[in-house]
Amino acid sequence: MKFSQFFIPTTKEKPKDAILPSHQYLIRGGFINQVSAGLYNFLPLGHIVLNKVKAIIKEELDRVNCNEVTLGFVTPAHMWEESGRLGKYGKELLKFKDRKNIEFVLGPTHEEMMVNLVKNRVKSYKNLPVNLYQINTKFRDEARPRFGILRGREFLMKDGYSFHSSEDDMIREFNLMQETYSKIFKKLGLDFRIVEADSGAIGGSGSKEFMVLADSGEDTIVICKSCEYAANIEAAKRVKQEAPTTLPEAKFSKFKTEGIITIEDLSEFFKVDKHFFIKAVIKKAIYDDRDELIVFFIRGSDELEEIKALNSIGANDLIDATQDDLKDAPVGYIGPIGLNSKFIIDEELRGESNLICGANEINYHLVGVDLNEHLKDAHYADLTIVAEGDKCTCCGGVLHYTKGIEVGHIFQLGTKYSEALDANFLDENGKSKPFIMGTYGIGVSRLLSALIEQNHDDKGCIWTKATTPFLVNIVVSNAKKEEELSIGIDLYENLKNKGVNVILDDRKERFGFKMGDFELIGFPYAIIIGKKIKDGFVEVIDRKTLEKQEVEIGNLDKILEIIE
Amino acid sequence: MKFSQFFIPTTKEKPKDAILPSHQYLIRGGFINQVSAGLYNFLPLGHIVLNKVKAIIKEELDRVNCNEVTLGFVTPAHMWEESGRLGKYGKELLKFKDRKNIEFVLGPTHEEMMVNLVKNRVKSYKNLPVNLYQINTKFRDEARPRFGILRGREFLMKDGYSFHSSEDDMIREFNLMQETYSKIFKKLGLDFRIVEADSGAIGGSGSKEFMVLADSGEDTIVICKSCEYAANIEAAKRVKQEAPTTLPEAKFSKFKTEGIITIEDLSEFFKVDKHFFIKAVIKKAIYDDRDELIVFFIRGSDELEEIKALNSIGANDLIDATQDDLKDAPVGYIGPIGLNSKFIIDEELRGESNLICGANEINYHLVGVDLNEHLKDAHYADLTIVAEGDKCTCCGGVLHYTKGIEVGHIFQLGTKYSEALDANFLDENGKSKPFIMGTYGIGVSRLLSALIEQNHDDKGCIWTKATTPFLVNIVVSNAKKEEELSIGIDLYENLKNKGVNVILDDRKERFGFKMGDFELIGFPYAIIIGKKIKDGFVEVIDRKTLEKQEVEIGNLDKILEIIE
Repeated sequence: MKFSQFFIPTTKEKPKDAILPSHQYLIRGGFINQVSAGLYNFLPLGHIVLNKVKAIIKEELDRVNCNEVTLGFVTPAHMWEESGRLGKYGKELLKFKDRKNIEFVLGPTHEEMMVNLVKNRVKSYKNLPVNLYQINTKFRDEARPRFGILRGREFLMKDGYSFHSSEDDMIREFNLMQETYSKIFKKLGLDFRIVEADSGAIGGSGSKEFMVLADSGEDTIVICKSCEYAANIEAAKRVKQEAPTTLPEAKFSKFKTEGIITIEDLSEFFKVDKHFFIKAVIKKAIYDDRDELIVFFIRGSDELEEIKALNSIGANDLIDATQDDLKDAPVGYIGPIGLNSKFIIDEELRGESNLICGANEINYHLVGVDLNEHLKDAHYADLTIVAEGDKCTCCGGVLHYTKGIEVGHIFQLGTKYSEALDANFLDENGKSKPFIMGTYGIGVSRLLSALIEQNHDDKGCIWTKATTPFLVNIVVSNAKKEEELSIGIDLYENLKNKGVNVILDDRKERFGFKMGDFELIGFPYAIIIGKKIKDGFVEVIDRKTLEKQEVEIGNLDKILEIIE
Repeated sequence: MKFSQFFIPTTKEKPKDAILPSHQYLIRGGFINQVSAGLYNFLPLGHIVLNKVKAIIKEELDRVNCNEVTLGFVTPAHMWEESGRLGKYGKELLKFKDRKNIEFVLGPTHEEMMVNLVKNRVKSYKNLPVNLYQINTKFRDEARPRFGILRGREFLMKDGYSFHSSEDDMIREFNLMQETYSKIFKKLGLDFRIVEADSGAIGGSGSKEFMVLADSGEDTIVICKSCEYAANIEAAKRVKQEAPTTLPEAKFSKFKTEGIITIEDLSEFFKVDKHFFIKAVIKKAIYDDRDELIVFFIRGSDELEEIKALNSIGANDLIDATQDDLKDAPVGYIGPIGLNSKFIIDEELRGESNLICGANEINYHLVGVDLNEHLKDAHYADLTIVAEGDKCTCCGGVLHYTKGIEVGHIFQLGTKYSEALDANFLDENGKSKPFIMGTYGIGVSRLLSALIEQNHDDKGCIWTKATTPFLVNIVVSNAKKEEELSIGIDLYENLKNKGVNVILDDRKERFGFKMGDFELIGFPYAIIIGKKIKDGFVEVIDRKTLEKQEVEIGNLDKILEIIE
């Protein structure tokens, strides 16, 4: 391909609002352009990268007998009504009516469509398992689309759905998908971690995310310094914390603590470490049919993890309680003993004793609280944020934080959708059972951002060899000079004949301008046809290191060796 | 690929409303399934065919330096406002508002988006021409989606747009695209004709359509029996008709014709052939800002071609006039001489004399009318339907009708959109000029229907070699018999190693069922591993002819020779 025949509108202008390098460089390098908030076009260079990413995904999935399909993007709303998600999905679900006043949605995900497809078409356990996937457009009407194509509204996604006759077979496929996804991300040249994840709104039990490690990542990942353990902050576990000090046993009694309400002040007042206090966090839970105040009790030294808290009660959302909501509550003095509201206690506190908590009476706390003795039938759940320095449940090593970009997500979905949509098969005994499902996603277009977040410098993109639009960029220093142009064209043809993916910059532009484009666009290698040709040399530049090597004109083997 | 690992939900059930063979067989063969009116999923087999069609299109376009992009499907309505099409496009344009109440459309075509992309990114004649295309989803909210994926609402289209600094260069590209499209449709294995077409709502001057010949086609094509001439009925031309008889010259005068108003009756009354009458057809033209009655005058022996009539006046639409509209008009006696309303006369009548027409007075006609003499400054245009038996303007041969399915359309678009959207470049003299554009479309998903409309029998599909999901289907007659299965697997592996695109029907189903699927799905060849193996043979069946050939087990060369 020749630059002169290719639409590559590079620009020096930094797009406004482009905080992340990937956002800036993908636009400046002519890979994408913005149409509207969260809506992008993929220009020829961006399109080639997309195609390469798609081809790698397809190759690995087809190898393990996944079947590719293309599902309708415009989806009848009644399918979402049937699954119960039409109302729950929130404003990200874009709804509209057609000319006949029938309601549709722009598919943000395709569980409903896929289950409806398989329903009544796969009838027997004999025809299971089935794993169907597509690489297709999705739309989520994000409240704050941002970071270019990292969080767009219209985007390209690989979404796969598997159907099984047993839980075991679903788990086998889940593990196969984990392996396959790992191969895909390795092939793309990404540095990633597989992390334990929260299953969120999709539902189901086991769930893992594939995280590309990058400083700019939106997600906090907890990783162990000593073993392979990694988890999303919302799903991270830790070894139960040990008491920082021993504390003399206190008698269970009410204690006047007039005006002292924060854990800080109470710790000071009692001269007791925050570890021994029970902290109350009051939230309002939003359900389909009602709102409800819920109190979460955690250690004084811990912080509430809101996603964990939400999952513990199965509500749609959790929001801050207002002053009005709390007008009758003894705020600052709320504790689990004798509390009338619904409450959940952090797993860490299970069976603990010698604790201090609010007495549910203004100006009073209880000391010497034993949760075994003083509280019957409480509901416990994991509610707290794992902190840096906490201990790994796998090996006891020290946990710390890092940042990641989610590029893949695999779920053990179970029967949530097959039950809701009445999608069944006949088992060996002729009994009708709902399909057991897994679901597997890759954010295809956002992978371009992730690749550049992980591979760039202050000059521009540095594409991995598997994803670069072209491996080698032959830069003819002055395309008006016949000798330079002719050497460039010869080299271009020779490399093409060797199967090298090469682009020739034959534009009649200044050398500096063309080198700027090379660095901005980020092809792995440039070969400069310039002044050195009078001594019989061209120069090969490695984009990553920016190191130059002189190679004799015509020494194709040497060039092939350098670029491998 | 093995049948047992592939999701191919064939069915004997004929879908209701499936009139066309392609609609019926694509659903029954497990290529597609209907989601809602005009909305379809592409299942694994259909997806493979789609990919093959896309790959052939891409290969040929890339060869002539077209650049592939992917444009946003969700398009800001303001772009359509700017081009003036938001209101004009009609109900097929699906509009909706996002969560922030901003209006968008689902792109039914992408002129606006593409012009906005190139605008300000290509600044000089030096960077022209540019030809950008995409193969992407489109949505048109058809009033009557029908015939499966032949006229769907959501569909896959290749749309390309070229930008030029001169009319000549645009015409060069138009011709190149005509040649490239011909190569594409030939490669796909289609029997097609290139026809002169009407430019319709897109605007512009020259326009040609690529029509796949099929009895079920929705479009009537006029073709010459003696030369290559072919045109859409809306665009067809003919040699000016000769008078069927000679007629004695009549004096220009008013003639009482009480109660005689149809051409039939008048012809009888005057004993003059219908050729010599001027027939008035009254229509109501719908403009942006008004409605207006317009009279079209054609020969008594001709019929009005409504698209030609619409194009002659540049209105948005043409509808029948109501009785109320006509309450003051001398209906049955309307003629061009002395008429106050706006009227257009058919080109055939230009310069004609000795005609009879209405006198614009109830119960009177004029005879001996000479349009040169009795009418000044009339507007003439081609208004009539070319009939079978009319003469070809290229060679004088006889024209006749045939039916076709439109699969491609190329336009010389000119500056309509670049002017409306203020998209300019600087020419050699530094002067700002609007881009001169061409636009080129292929109905990608409907090609699957067209392929099957042209290639099927009463048992099912017959895919062309270029488009078939698999070339050879190895049918193991009884997959429970180890010997048969093992011979089948051997042959499958051997053919795969030879690069043959082969599928193995290893399902534990009845032989008849599997052969039924073969015939319904329509792979070009089946190889049957059955009873004949005891004599050392397998059978190769040609799907088109259903002829069988016995081949010795292990004689791979013979099989390769048969399937080429």
